[in-house]
Parts: sequence; structure tokens; C-alpha cells
Amino acid sequence: MPIGAKVWAIAEGYIPRDNFAERDRRFVSHETACLLNCGDADAEVRLTLYFSDREPVGPYRFKLPARRTLHLRFNDLNDPHPVPRETDFASVIESDQPIVVQHTRLDSRREALALLSTLAYAGS
Amino acid sequence: MPIGAKVWAIAEGYIPRDNFAERDRRFVSHETACLLNCGDADAEVRLTLYFSDREPVGPYRFKLPARRTLHLRFNDLNDPHPVPRETDFASVIESDQPIVVQHTRLDSRREALALLSTLAYAGS
Amino acid sequence: MPIGAKVWAIAEGYIPRDNFAERDRRFVSHETACLLNCGDADAEVRLTLYFSDREPVGPYRFKLPARRTLHLRFNDLNDPHPVPRETDFASVIESDQPIVVQHTRLDSRREALALLSTLAYAGS
Amino acid sequence: MPIGAKVWAIAEGYIPRDNFAERDRRFVSHETACLLNCGDADAEVRLTLYFSDREPVGPYRFKLPARRTLHLRFNDLNDPHPVPRETDFASVIESDQPIVVQHTRLDSRREALALLSTLAYAGS
Repeated sequence: MPIGAKVWAIAEGYIPRDNFAERDRRFVSHETACLLNCGDADAEVRLTLYFSDREPVGPYRFKLPARRTLHLRFNDLNDPHPVPRETDFASVIESDQPIVVQHTRLDSRREALALLSTLAYAGS
Repeated sequence: MPIGAKVWAIAEGYIPRDNFAERDRRFVSHETACLLNCGDADAEVRLTLYFSDREPVGPYRFKLPARRTLHLRFNDLNDPHPVPRETDFASVIESDQPIVVQHTRLDSRREALALLSTLAYAGS
Repeated sequence: MPIGAKVWAIAEGYIPRDNFAERDRRFVSHETACLLNCGDADAEVRLTLYFSDREPVGPYRFKLPARRTLHLRFNDLNDPHPVPRETDFASVIESDQPIVVQHTRLDSRREALALLSTLAYAGS
Repeated sequence: MPIGAKVWAIAEGYIPRDNFAERDRRFVSHETACLLNCGDADAEVRLTLYFSDREPVGPYRFKLPARRTLHLRFNDLNDPHPVPRETDFASVIESDQPIVVQHTRLDSRREALALLSTLAYAGS
């Protein structure tokens, strides 16, 4: 049974400057879009980035197979462009199948970790 | 009065490796699905786990009595399988009665605690 | 213009044991329901607590005036009963006027603060 | 394609007293409303603040251009009035075009950072 929506928006986005002293990928500050495709059809997903002072960038394209989740780090996006660090952004995620999207950030700029998470906004 | 939905999805899930040095259950890193059944009928609940690289696992079955809440730690799931640590997952929760689901994580990998929480996604 | 819903649910709730060493109210661990009444009519609000192993407690009653917000600490509820510490709970909030409800927790059990927040679930 | 709603509410708001020892803007405690306008028309946005013990203040007015995001710090609001520190508030955001709103707080009152975030409530 497919659950979710085909258009999602995340109004918040911010990746601190890469911390090269942190060698453990688990603890590098990151922004993540957690995607879930519960359905039985593979989904083609397109992600577009929005900024405060320039035109949108994208789409970034990837496949989300049937009955799979993908925790996509914005830090890892490279094609067509890496996500600029220390820059406010937002994102829109479009899929040809219903999916569910949750937004999470881990901030390790200081020794203590900080976390945030929220459901993304499901468009019509 | 029943409040809620019968299908919920949580796209985010991740349990750090068990920290055997931490003996206080309250402070062990955990992922929780907080379930609330405000209605007057007991609910039969089924939880299914989704992964990035393998078929879904479940259902995990449990009862949520009328007028009760259950804060279910994913760490404690064992039947049919424990939840793998340090592995991205997502979950779908189905109930035969309307319920409300909220997702929470406590991360104690470092001395300072980090918390996140969000309402889960209510399917139709 | 009234914004919101008349029934809200928060499936998560947990107040650590009172930390008597912490004398600054701002930093005492607390759970909060943030209520907003944007409308022009005062709202009568009723809050009911749900537990894992006993019948619900309440209602707790209070007034939310027109065009006002109230950040209600569960720690401060006393009539008909204080909220038990170190106990999982959930809550349902009913209002005779549309309101908006957001759930927040500050955890100061360790030196570092941890925060979580989510929109509550708007019932029909 | 426009995504979102024209009325949003954030029931939670609280800015700690300004920390003059903290000179790095990134780490000053702040409350943010992240706004996204995915559409092709510029949006006129009005923000109103609500309090527990006085009449609402506003509107604060600003423009959100087409295809842009704006991460608006409540700390920076000054016209018609700065946001009082250490005071509970809430906010309503109205736009003449559909937008998406997410609420985030960074708390740096102690050495460790704490973060929270949630989707705002989309009014009808």
C-alpha cells in the first residue's frame, strides 16, 4: 500500500563548513532528507534547492526502490552542484510515486551533538 | 472519542551501537514511537521496518489498550528480529483503531544528551 | 481570524525527576504545550493525561484569552493531580475555540541542554 | 508550481536574553521562521506576534521573492518593535502567495548547542 505524497518541501537547510578534523562520518554535521517508499513501484525522485539570493539549483535525480528507505545527506549532493556550506537553503522533493519525507540535522560544531527533526510539508 | 489515523509512517530511524558502559536505561540512546489510543476500543498494532538495502521486516505485533499510551522503544523490538544497530531504517505503523504517533530519539553517544521529535506522517 | 483546531493530541510526554539543585526556573527540565488563540473569543481549554498503566487523569481546565498565547508547563499542573515524574504520558487538549498547539521539551538532566519540539496532532 | 499555504501559525517562541559575550552571529541563540516561496510570483508577507499578557504586535512586513527562501530571525525584527527577550510569544504568518514555513531554534545559553525544529501549522 503506497503511503505519502508526491511533492514535499523542507523550508530549512544549513550545512556548517566541513569540519576536516572530524574523520568519523557519523559525527560530521549533516542535513538529511529521510525518504520512505512503502509502495511496490520504484520511485524516480527529483530534488531542487532554493536559496535566498540566487535562482534554484537542480534537479538532483535519484531512484528510490520499492519498499526501501533512503536517508539522503545534502552534504553528499554533487550533481549538478555541491550544496554550498554556511548558506541558507530550502528544498523541494518531487516523486512519481507516493513517498514520505522527514528532515533531520545533526550539528557537531561543538563537542556536544545537537539534533533536530521534523516531518516535511506534504504538497497537494 | 477516537483521535488519529490508522496508518502512520516514520521515515527516519537509526539506533547507535549499544553502549554497554551506560547502565541507566533512561540514558541509553534510543528511538521511540510514542503511540496514543484515546478511544474506548483496544487497538491491535502492527509495525513494519524498512531498510535501504533489503526487504522489509515484520510485522511486529502488539496491543495498545483503550485510553492508554505506549512509548515503544525500537531498541526493544525482538520478534521477529532485533533492529540492527548503526543502520538506517524507517517504519510503518498500522492499527485497527485510530491512534496518534509521535517519533522521538535520545542520543547519548556523547556526554551531552541530544533530542529530536516529530509527529509521524498520518496516511489516509 | 481564528486559526487551528479544537482537538489536539501529543503522544509523547515525560518529565524527569525534579532537580532541586537547579534553582533557575528557566533551566529546570520541563515539558510544555504552547497554545495560541488568534481568534477574538476567549477559549475554554480542557487537558486530559493518558498513561501506560492506569486510567486517564483530568480534565485540567484553564482559559486561553482571545489573541493570546499560553506556554503551559506540564510540570505546573496540580489540579486535579500533579503529573507524575519519570513516567510516560500523553495528552489530549480540547478547546471550545480553534487554537494551535505545539509541544516542546527542555531536558537539563546533564549540563548541556537538549531541546525537542513538534506540532501536535490536530484532530478532526 | 506553488506549494504551501497562505496562513501559518507557530505557537512557540522564546528568545533568551542577548548574550553579548557571543560575538559570532551563527552561535547567538535565535528563533527562526524559515520561509519558502517555490512559486513564480513574489509574495508579500505579514507577521504578527502574540503574547501571554498584552495585545498582539505587528504586522511586520517583508517581501519573499519568487523561487527564494528566507530564514528570518525573530531576533532581527525591529519595525514596529523589537521582540522582547525572555518572553513567551507566538506568531502568525500571512502571505498573499502560497509559502511553506518551518520553525527552528538554536539555544546557546550553555556551551553545548541545542536545536529544535518543527513544521509550522498551516491554516486553511
